[in-house]
Amino acid sequence: MDLAAIVQQIGYDMAAAPHRGVVADYIPELKRVDPSQFGLAVMTADGQTYHCGDADVRFSIQSVSKVFTLALALGRMGDQLWTRVGREPSGHAFNSILQLETEHGIPRNPFINAGALVVTDAILAGHPPRETLGEILRFVRAAAGDDNIHINPDVAQSEEQTGHRNRALAHFLLANANLINPPELTCGTYFHQCAIEMTCLQLAQAGRFLMGGPNAPRLVSPERVRRLNALMMTCGHYDGSGEFAFRVGLPGKSGVGGGILAIVPGRASIAVWSPGLNERGNSQLGTLAIEHLARATGWSVFG
Amino acid sequence: MDLAAIVQQIGYDMAAAPHRGVVADYIPELKRVDPSQFGLAVMTADGQTYHCGDADVRFSIQSVSKVFTLALALGRMGDQLWTRVGREPSGHAFNSILQLETEHGIPRNPFINAGALVVTDAILAGHPPRETLGEILRFVRAAAGDDNIHINPDVAQSEEQTGHRNRALAHFLLANANLINPPELTCGTYFHQCAIEMTCLQLAQAGRFLMGGPNAPRLVSPERVRRLNALMMTCGHYDGSGEFAFRVGLPGKSGVGGGILAIVPGRASIAVWSPGLNERGNSQLGTLAIEHLARATGWSVFG
Amino acid sequence: MDLAAIVQQIGYDMAAAPHRGVVADYIPELKRVDPSQFGLAVMTADGQTYHCGDADVRFSIQSVSKVFTLALALGRMGDQLWTRVGREPSGHAFNSILQLETEHGIPRNPFINAGALVVTDAILAGHPPRETLGEILRFVRAAAGDDNIHINPDVAQSEEQTGHRNRALAHFLLANANLINPPELTCGTYFHQCAIEMTCLQLAQAGRFLMGGPNAPRLVSPERVRRLNALMMTCGHYDGSGEFAFRVGLPGKSGVGGGILAIVPGRASIAVWSPGLNERGNSQLGTLAIEHLARATGWSVFG
Amino acid sequence: MDLAAIVQQIGYDMAAAPHRGVVADYIPELKRVDPSQFGLAVMTADGQTYHCGDADVRFSIQSVSKVFTLALALGRMGDQLWTRVGREPSGHAFNSILQLETEHGIPRNPFINAGALVVTDAILAGHPPRETLGEILRFVRAAAGDDNIHINPDVAQSEEQTGHRNRALAHFLLANANLINPPELTCGTYFHQCAIEMTCLQLAQAGRFLMGGPNAPRLVSPERVRRLNALMMTCGHYDGSGEFAFRVGLPGKSGVGGGILAIVPGRASIAVWSPGLNERGNSQLGTLAIEHLARATGWSVFG
Repeated sequence: MDLAAIVQQIGYDMAAAPHRGVVADYIPELKRVDPSQFGLAVMTADGQTYHCGDADVRFSIQSVSKVFTLALALGRMGDQLWTRVGREPSGHAFNSILQLETEHGIPRNPFINAGALVVTDAILAGHPPRETLGEILRFVRAAAGDDNIHINPDVAQSEEQTGHRNRALAHFLLANANLINPPELTCGTYFHQCAIEMTCLQLAQAGRFLMGGPNAPRLVSPERVRRLNALMMTCGHYDGSGEFAFRVGLPGKSGVGGGILAIVPGRASIAVWSPGLNERGNSQLGTLAIEHLARATGWSVFG
Repeated sequence: MDLAAIVQQIGYDMAAAPHRGVVADYIPELKRVDPSQFGLAVMTADGQTYHCGDADVRFSIQSVSKVFTLALALGRMGDQLWTRVGREPSGHAFNSILQLETEHGIPRNPFINAGALVVTDAILAGHPPRETLGEILRFVRAAAGDDNIHINPDVAQSEEQTGHRNRALAHFLLANANLINPPELTCGTYFHQCAIEMTCLQLAQAGRFLMGGPNAPRLVSPERVRRLNALMMTCGHYDGSGEFAFRVGLPGKSGVGGGILAIVPGRASIAVWSPGLNERGNSQLGTLAIEHLARATGWSVFG
Repeated sequence: MDLAAIVQQIGYDMAAAPHRGVVADYIPELKRVDPSQFGLAVMTADGQTYHCGDADVRFSIQSVSKVFTLALALGRMGDQLWTRVGREPSGHAFNSILQLETEHGIPRNPFINAGALVVTDAILAGHPPRETLGEILRFVRAAAGDDNIHINPDVAQSEEQTGHRNRALAHFLLANANLINPPELTCGTYFHQCAIEMTCLQLAQAGRFLMGGPNAPRLVSPERVRRLNALMMTCGHYDGSGEFAFRVGLPGKSGVGGGILAIVPGRASIAVWSPGLNERGNSQLGTLAIEHLARATGWSVFG
Repeated sequence: MDLAAIVQQIGYDMAAAPHRGVVADYIPELKRVDPSQFGLAVMTADGQTYHCGDADVRFSIQSVSKVFTLALALGRMGDQLWTRVGREPSGHAFNSILQLETEHGIPRNPFINAGALVVTDAILAGHPPRETLGEILRFVRAAAGDDNIHINPDVAQSEEQTGHRNRALAHFLLANANLINPPELTCGTYFHQCAIEMTCLQLAQAGRFLMGGPNAPRLVSPERVRRLNALMMTCGHYDGSGEFAFRVGLPGKSGVGGGILAIVPGRASIAVWSPGLNERGNSQLGTLAIEHLARATGWSVFG
């Protein structure tokens, strides 16, 4: 298998792809991103790196950050966290509040917005947001082995100004006694965490710990690696998770900035980015690129 | 790894397990099954068989049959089937009608009842139910390499008498132009398909084609094998699918008769059975046994 | 007040009305009705009759029949009926199945389809449908003082052929042990009851018993008259009941055939008919006409 | 009819009533109210007053205030208000957020919490909350003809501390562009408006403008009086409105403080108060007392 050639070909194909999705418009700062961009980076267990396109351009990782905060929260609290958030796909949109009402304030999983707020709230736990954000950044930088990873203050501020729905979720969680910090602090921390910027190369690097196996950095226990991958598989693409599992067959986590982190257990960490989103809110070309990559390489957890 | 010893130990542990769940009570004939039973059978890619407990006792496979009918329907119709049924976890109970109303009669996936009715309806397609049931049985027998697999007429009749909710789903599908046979025929076929009886040994045998790889029987294409496994992973345990993925890490399909079929891609086909169900409607001991097996063997698609 | 002139003027205005709604298309036989028709009949407590337009043309009363079957069922069973059906507005469409699932098979009120099926089922109660339909017809004829009221067999058959959603509701009720006759019998009776045909003159006549007061025919007790009116006020126009109360201020019951029966307690019984429906499924011109009538006469229960 | 004797008898009956409901516990300050209290005041169109029990004890009017703010908002904005809030019963609890998501941020009616927040937001309209609260108080005082009506600051503060669910609703409205003031200001104003305290005598006095007719104070037009009554009838008791209409037959508005204002159009204004609530969140004895009163007097809008 000539992985270099495969990655290169995908770069060509995506550059020519006619349907590129629509850039998220509800965060003004993200709306300004050039939709023609596409980047892909693959890191294999043996330490090789393959990339194409705009793999070294920084983008807003948004919800991909939820993987890192979940790993961090589990490291801090262990399985206690699961008393506050579930582990099931939601069957609803990423920002839906419906199940929060019918299920008594326990979010379905840590990757929908309500669940991610609970995770961030658990890490925050009374500490100053600045300190918690420092801890999150340290975790991501350690995972990537790269200190040049930062929060984009303009994006964070843009989310502060428009994140009313997330605030509604936070107040609703509080009304159900499932928030321990003031909503404004938890939301503020969450908005900044989502505004972390990385390149595809950095993100693929940061995802290696989820490959598991002897060559991967060991930031969390092997059992937890498997469980994080399981959650990414069943819940990582919101209400498009079934489709991603069906078409790609790899655990992955998408963000509204157009980034996707996907894992080939024991073999590779993949980061892809293209700002245009499909109707489920996942990167149009990013999804397509990983599907091509999985087919060309035969990578799938399902055989 | 001494798989024989592991399987034996699980048999001992399950025999002593204090919490055995509750036998399904809404199908009178199933209610009469002795809840103390437990069986486990594992078939590996190299042709070995390991089993313990009541692995040679017949049980009603119920919804596990949906894997076989889905494979059959896809073989017949190909991807056309996906215009009539989705590929996303539902976030609701297996027999819920809620999303059928809000999503215009397209069931979320082929493993909830509404979706399985669509699949059976697609195979039926105007043929006499008896003929279609013959075809389904032939497929299952071919997969198992065993002609001694039958439908239990008492169970089928019991379901005929109590399957009002499934009939409601069928009429609702028809009202949305997503049923092509008369509801009574589709439901009748479905009730009989669910009443197929197999032993754990037969079911593990029948599941080998889902292992993929060079040693597995090739009933469907490798790509379709992966996709069936993906659907089993995200939707195979209804609103407990995320939990099964999290705890076990293998694609699986459960039935209300207490059976579960789980697949280790490229390596093994596993059938487990114990009639008592947990609160999600999946076998209490069956789930526990597969979790133990996965942990002891290290089998997981997630690393 | 010159009621004759008011009614005449409304006839002129409605003849010239530009927006006439859309004829229901899901019952083929109803779809063939000429949408340009409009009729209005008003009967006052002192025995006077005023009418205009097509007040003597027969139309399918459809859900208006639910008022008569409810009165009949309450006369037969008394308040026992309320163990099987509620008395609250639903907040959903007339044919929705959502609340039936979340509220354990107890329909919200007797005027949505699920609730009306329960009412018909309660009257049927093991008797032959033909006999029960005879009883319903006798009640309506007695109320109207007119034996020339019949069921249109073509409309009934048309509903038989397309009433899949009502069958879904009936099977769902049965699954919740809230149906005592076979679904096919209850639905068949219901389809025929909806196919009763009356003219506006007959319907206004038949509604007089709901006026209450010394001059009204006493088919049910005064307390029950008030309660039937209360239900018509809060639930009589499905998810448009609040709007009808707001704009018109009278208890009323609409049908998908374009008819509306409205009551001015102690003063008048009003029947209006025009086949075109608004987006809530209630007669467009019928609603408008009653609104005009209420404004011109000052009739309102609210002052 | 000896109204004085009827009111007196109801006072005796309620004092002896065994089931008195449960005092609301989610607003700490309200939880401290003595549940044994009961008051009733009736003011007739001819200027007579009848009362019994604790009719001169102040209580927190809570959601009864929504009638006054709605009248005020309509006076200010006219029918423009209806672009922001609907007029249909919700079929859900008073504080539900479900329909706000599925219906794009337009609350079902002005009497559920979400709708009342929109109404208060419309009055606030950029003014300082203190000024708006002054205006609301002036309206209520003018209606009651009594300047001795105040906001209880302890109750307002108690609601500030626990009103997380209302804040969630406000942020959700803002996310749907249906809030024009900062959520904290709209909520703060709303919490204070709910903390207005009145006696039954004051509240019955303040409700006279809703009687309509020549003897009632004319604060709003006759047509608007009818429409306010219509809304109270269909939506005034949340998801118990149908039941109140069925049992009592009068337009009414309840509050979680245990107060109910009910109107007999053209004839009387009724205020009742008892702190214990039924399972729908409406005063247990208050509802019962008005039901007794309506039966004894024959007062009903339905004949």
